[in-house]
Amino acid sequence: MRKIIIGVMGPGADAKKADIEYARRLGELIAENNWTVLSGGINKGVMSAVNEGAKSKEGTTIGVLPNDDITTHSENLDYSIITNMKAGRNYINALSSNILIACGVSAGTVSEIAFAIQARKPIILINYSIFARKFLKDLGKELIYVAKNPEEAINLIKNKILVDKNDA
Amino acid sequence: MRKIIIGVMGPGADAKKADIEYARRLGELIAENNWTVLSGGINKGVMSAVNEGAKSKEGTTIGVLPNDDITTHSENLDYSIITNMKAGRNYINALSSNILIACGVSAGTVSEIAFAIQARKPIILINYSIFARKFLKDLGKELIYVAKNPEEAINLIKNKILVDKNDA
Amino acid sequence: MRKIIIGVMGPGADAKKADIEYARRLGELIAENNWTVLSGGINKGVMSAVNEGAKSKEGTTIGVLPNDDITTHSENLDYSIITNMKAGRNYINALSSNILIACGVSAGTVSEIAFAIQARKPIILINYSIFARKFLKDLGKELIYVAKNPEEAINLIKNKILVDKNDA
Amino acid sequence: MRKIIIGVMGPGADAKKADIEYARRLGELIAENNWTVLSGGINKGVMSAVNEGAKSKEGTTIGVLPNDDITTHSENLDYSIITNMKAGRNYINALSSNILIACGVSAGTVSEIAFAIQARKPIILINYSIFARKFLKDLGKELIYVAKNPEEAINLIKNKILVDKNDA
Repeated sequence: MRKIIIGVMGPGADAKKADIEYARRLGELIAENNWTVLSGGINKGVMSAVNEGAKSKEGTTIGVLPNDDITTHSENLDYSIITNMKAGRNYINALSSNILIACGVSAGTVSEIAFAIQARKPIILINYSIFARKFLKDLGKELIYVAKNPEEAINLIKNKILVDKNDA
Repeated sequence: MRKIIIGVMGPGADAKKADIEYARRLGELIAENNWTVLSGGINKGVMSAVNEGAKSKEGTTIGVLPNDDITTHSENLDYSIITNMKAGRNYINALSSNILIACGVSAGTVSEIAFAIQARKPIILINYSIFARKFLKDLGKELIYVAKNPEEAINLIKNKILVDKNDA
Repeated sequence: MRKIIIGVMGPGADAKKADIEYARRLGELIAENNWTVLSGGINKGVMSAVNEGAKSKEGTTIGVLPNDDITTHSENLDYSIITNMKAGRNYINALSSNILIACGVSAGTVSEIAFAIQARKPIILINYSIFARKFLKDLGKELIYVAKNPEEAINLIKNKILVDKNDA
Repeated sequence: MRKIIIGVMGPGADAKKADIEYARRLGELIAENNWTVLSGGINKGVMSAVNEGAKSKEGTTIGVLPNDDITTHSENLDYSIITNMKAGRNYINALSSNILIACGVSAGTVSEIAFAIQARKPIILINYSIFARKFLKDLGKELIYVAKNPEEAINLIKNKILVDKNDA
């Protein structure tokens, strides 16, 4: 009964155009696969875009929110989990996702990747530099995957990550 | 788009028979009204019963879990929010519920009522002593409602609490 | 080496005059006994007064702060633990205190008492109504003590609570 | 009155010998400068060593602990802040430190560096690879310092970081 939750993490106000485009597409593809999107829930950057994409395909969206100011929350959330813990909620984002996709770089996103490594979750990096990928692979080893774009990320989940889990 | 979340809080291992029966019935009724159940998510007492009731009527259930040990989680959860914060997650339970129903008494439940009062959420008490009701009404004033049973609690939500909110 | 920490909890902006006077005196007496004061750290009500009292007697003060806005913090803190968890930090207040003194009533204070009961900490109530004392004793049983004033609270700690602990 | 807190972060059970030796020396030097040590508080690796070093020079030590199991806590703590938030307490470590020293690499330590960057705290790296330093400087820019050893880290704090702060 427990639904598969794909966490999509990435920059808010400082997101690049490529991060936002990819996040929107990730939301669409996650919804089409009947998985649930979990994000930090704010109406900016990657968080806003992934929820918009998911709802455009009638997906389900959960936001784990840093504050209780509803005017700052994404309009495309089905379920709003209010923590009032500011970036402390990043820990909950990592723990509650079965798989984490990091779409773009920010300090907050790096905290979520670090927590996901600690909790032994598979992590897919999109839009990361060579240095970042090298460093994060040193840290997370076989948990770290790299995808060139949203389609490749979804293929990794379907044909590699979920398959390996079922083998185990 | 944001769904209405009814938090149902109450004792776990120490729940009384009446708490558990009422929690199961609350789960059924919340599901029949197309609201979402949020609970502390553990497979014991009120948490277990409300999720079981809701799923028996094809409702939706969210658990805000104190730990990441899946063997202790209710089997009837659609969405598992993992906090690893033990009872610190009680704050998130209160903030994330549009309305809180406290079904039975425990120290954890009282912390959730106190946080809900602080966050100005309507709270319905079921199975509370005269002393408890008097004390909590002194503390929460017009936020505190009392119901004799699950049906009365649901009627309060439909005919009083949600109506008053829409008036505002 | 670990210092004894006495948590002093109570209302902030809504504190009554009697709460504030007693909190200041509690701070003095805790300092004179070489224990450490822990509070919610804000520059209002009971939190502000207990820190002021403790520092007037060269005691040591820890604040577990809900935010990182230093202009709202008590000026009389030696150690500022910044949580950015708003009232979620109340859980940490309860867990980190060896003994809790609740000086006056507020929703936040009740959450701290409830968490302290759950964590099996001794709790001393000052300025609580008959109804409140009855309800909290039902909930916390032998953990709940009542004191008429700061001197009586300190005597309870010295002659009863710490003695019983050493017996165990 | 507020004391200067130097957070010393690093691996626990997986700490390398060089991390532990440097952490012990950092504890001594921080104590000799009359600053307070803050750590994750567990009796392993960098956390254990920095507290041992600080107490050997009569310094003051604060532990922000992930659990309430006292048998896992460093014996050299003056003040134990109990969070029961597991690695979620890493956020509090970063926010409560005026300056962060990361002594060795682990996923938890990276989460603390990321949070410290977000909170605009100066961070000193010891025992980090070229890739790690490059990545973290890209992320944290002028907040990131690198030291070859404890003495160099302390010199950076005294002659650069605290001086710059006072200029501002």
